[in-house]
Amino acid sequence: MGEDRVLTRRALLVGVGAAGGAGAMFAAMGALGLAPDSQTKDFVPPRPSDFSLSGRAAAKVVILGGGVAGLACAYELGKAGYDCTVLEAADRAGGRNRTVRGGDRLTELDGETQTAEFEEGTYFNAGPGRIAPWMVTLDYCRELGVPIEMFVNNNASAYVYTQGMTAPIRSRTARADLYGYVAELLAKATDAGALNQRLTKDDRERLSEFLRHFGDLGPDLGYNGSTRRGFETYPGVGDGIPIPAPSSLQDVLAAGTGRAITMDFGYEQATPMFQPVGGMDSIVTALVRAVGPDRIRTGTRVTGVKDLPDGVEVTHRGGAFRADYCIATLPPHLLARLPHNLGGPVTAALRTPVPIAAGKLGLEYGRRWWEIDDRIYGGITETDLDITHIWYPSHGYHSRSGLVVGYYNSEENAELYGRLSHGERRDRALTQGKKIHGEKYRSELRSSVSVAWQRQPYIEGGWAVWPSYTGGFTVLQHPAGRVYFAGDWLTRLVAWQAGALESARKVVTDLHSRVLQGTS
Amino acid sequence: MGEDRVLTRRALLVGVGAAGGAGAMFAAMGALGLAPDSQTKDFVPPRPSDFSLSGRAAAKVVILGGGVAGLACAYELGKAGYDCTVLEAADRAGGRNRTVRGGDRLTELDGETQTAEFEEGTYFNAGPGRIAPWMVTLDYCRELGVPIEMFVNNNASAYVYTQGMTAPIRSRTARADLYGYVAELLAKATDAGALNQRLTKDDRERLSEFLRHFGDLGPDLGYNGSTRRGFETYPGVGDGIPIPAPSSLQDVLAAGTGRAITMDFGYEQATPMFQPVGGMDSIVTALVRAVGPDRIRTGTRVTGVKDLPDGVEVTHRGGAFRADYCIATLPPHLLARLPHNLGGPVTAALRTPVPIAAGKLGLEYGRRWWEIDDRIYGGITETDLDITHIWYPSHGYHSRSGLVVGYYNSEENAELYGRLSHGERRDRALTQGKKIHGEKYRSELRSSVSVAWQRQPYIEGGWAVWPSYTGGFTVLQHPAGRVYFAGDWLTRLVAWQAGALESARKVVTDLHSRVLQGTS
Repeated sequence: MGEDRVLTRRALLVGVGAAGGAGAMFAAMGALGLAPDSQTKDFVPPRPSDFSLSGRAAAKVVILGGGVAGLACAYELGKAGYDCTVLEAADRAGGRNRTVRGGDRLTELDGETQTAEFEEGTYFNAGPGRIAPWMVTLDYCRELGVPIEMFVNNNASAYVYTQGMTAPIRSRTARADLYGYVAELLAKATDAGALNQRLTKDDRERLSEFLRHFGDLGPDLGYNGSTRRGFETYPGVGDGIPIPAPSSLQDVLAAGTGRAITMDFGYEQATPMFQPVGGMDSIVTALVRAVGPDRIRTGTRVTGVKDLPDGVEVTHRGGAFRADYCIATLPPHLLARLPHNLGGPVTAALRTPVPIAAGKLGLEYGRRWWEIDDRIYGGITETDLDITHIWYPSHGYHSRSGLVVGYYNSEENAELYGRLSHGERRDRALTQGKKIHGEKYRSELRSSVSVAWQRQPYIEGGWAVWPSYTGGFTVLQHPAGRVYFAGDWLTRLVAWQAGALESARKVVTDLHSRVLQGTS
Repeated sequence: MGEDRVLTRRALLVGVGAAGGAGAMFAAMGALGLAPDSQTKDFVPPRPSDFSLSGRAAAKVVILGGGVAGLACAYELGKAGYDCTVLEAADRAGGRNRTVRGGDRLTELDGETQTAEFEEGTYFNAGPGRIAPWMVTLDYCRELGVPIEMFVNNNASAYVYTQGMTAPIRSRTARADLYGYVAELLAKATDAGALNQRLTKDDRERLSEFLRHFGDLGPDLGYNGSTRRGFETYPGVGDGIPIPAPSSLQDVLAAGTGRAITMDFGYEQATPMFQPVGGMDSIVTALVRAVGPDRIRTGTRVTGVKDLPDGVEVTHRGGAFRADYCIATLPPHLLARLPHNLGGPVTAALRTPVPIAAGKLGLEYGRRWWEIDDRIYGGITETDLDITHIWYPSHGYHSRSGLVVGYYNSEENAELYGRLSHGERRDRALTQGKKIHGEKYRSELRSSVSVAWQRQPYIEGGWAVWPSYTGGFTVLQHPAGRVYFAGDWLTRLVAWQAGALESARKVVTDLHSRVLQGTS
């Protein structure tokens, strides 16, 4: 049924395109719900049979950058027989989708090289680490047979730590206290008649009933603590020993835990999230296999792009490459430096997004003390320290060893850590983490690896942010001659792998439509 | 280090016990933190070496009931060489820990038998389905090598459906709206000075800052909807198409979604939770293997228990069994019916807990429409219908088929469904589920199995609840002569497998102490 609909649409579009050119084609796409906004549901990959109606043939495409956007372009175009070649400067495909394992080397722009000393089975997702269920990334996992498992993005047993606290508190405790007091304040204000102008009697009763649940309030509408705060000793044969009563309303508000406990409220971060089994780069491995490793030329640094009347010419360290079309997926700040003939507005647009520093530190321990001592199974401790977060692994539960992410920070904090040597980064992060986990955080460490994305060759940033989604953003949604642009930075999903995939789908759709139309 | 502490404690206790008898022993245990309240952290399993100090030897123990409590008793006592025999009336061990697979038969008390027609790989956890990370159950998974994976207990993409809604709404939407309006009401009341007596200026500023985050409020402190409500079309190359603005405060309060969105606030239900890979009965399988299958006599229905001066005599359908001690782990309402010589107070205590009806329905589908059509990966839809919940599977993501739990209800709703034939239960639940998922909920169904625990032979209830944790509850924490009692019903963790394990640990500790003391 879905298939029929798709064929009909496709046939109609080809007809429109042939008769009315690209403008009419895009207008028709919008009317059919194929405009950018509906990309996920309605993406139709190019297929060999598309050409049977048009009398056209698949083209030769050179793709700059073997990150997820570039690989996805090659994969989707390849389905219809396009002759794609991916030029990648680094010695591996994947870009920021990088999983570090024992023996891997990480070299930064100043030349410092780390070699991961992880034991067999340990891995560190240095780039993307989690996938929301609504993201197209999961569709690729399904299609490519990449097994997924849950990523714990919200763990009531993880900690919240803000400066000024004498000791970290469990996320569940911070939540119980803030919700408890908020519920008390509103329930009492309601009870005192402060909202009578806004609420009917029925509304007030419903609100009060909700607030009692929400805050676990007593019969007097007061918040006096709750078993939701957790137990020092778990209940069982006995009552359990609950965590002592909460601090005052003043102290709870002053502790500043609000950001931490609302962390997963947004659409992007809501529970549950997912990760590929065995490392995020399972997606890269699967894409490379599907594209064909022979189509991906690693160690090939591009030095120039020329748009020609009948094709494109890409120069690289080893020579030149001709094709019918080019898709440029390098980060915009790197593309902006590349000699090209695409015109001033393109250069200006490429210079608009601001590259953002981002860093992560992987800490390998020989004992899963977070599970054994703290009963933390996955999830994230939120802090206002320069490490921002501590991530616990959402896999390998109950195994002997594991890897904790000692920081995942961005902007100023990432710049600060990025300027340090790896050893200095590690020591600084351990000093911070000790405030939460005590001496074992340092003493039980086995090995570590850090990444400062702004210092990674051929990448030079965690992601790139547009000051506004107008101007340059719009310019680069369209090809400059025969050169297309793709990447997460060309979507609203900046810094998400899903953005790279959505952008790839858009460009593939555009390019294929053009080839089917036969307009140059 | 932990080991040294344990040895010292154990040695001390044995000394105290030998000198002062059981009373002094228990007092010393309390002082050492071994009293019931600290059971989880401080449980020390019996070991063969314990006897070298005491001159005593392990005893012969008969255990009534091969559920998780009984198996755990046999497992822990077996570590020190106790000669344990488990008598189980059913033809399988595990009790309520039951995972139904294709070919399995489920017979109810009135004789109706269902045979599961699930395909290879499909399973249905008819009893317990999830484990909180603080529960001792996870320790057994670790110790017994039972792999675990996350159970999604809270999914922002799952639905909330209450009667009177024209269509279900996503959990994230219900949360965004209730939190949004609650934040608005409190922020505006604060702004208007209604809380000036309670809050200082600093407090008010901190509260307002929190409420802006919490409710995603506008600059006017109003809640006007938010991207947290979700998108009809996901953002990507375009903006995405957000779900339309919320209903009025009145309608949101009237919708009654509060219970659903606070479901995981309690200590027992907080995210993340876990499940054994491959089915909850992996725990049973591992316990049976560790105990030794030859020690478990299935199909052996106990008909009487006699406490004797020098041992116990248990009669069963096939004869009689003598041992030094007995641990009775049958449900209390079944034990109460068993002829015994343990005295009136024991009978009265056993009659006190009230058995509660509970039911579950497993619906097998040939297509994972909840993932493909609804982007629901695990989690629970909450309703106020008689089905209460719909559970989506937290495993087998992206595989071809899967099993949805069509109801998990208790008390009146479970009694209602329990009185029906399986076909009637299925049809009723499908009619309810269709209100949420539409016609496919019925049309794509492949097979189904239902369990009504109150109609399961040798079990006759989902769980049993004490009117109060005094009186009978306390009586049965102590042995009646040489007969001990164990089960989740003897803990604060009624209806949780962890309760069965905690109770087993307590009884094993008590019994072993007594044997080491040599008091009869």
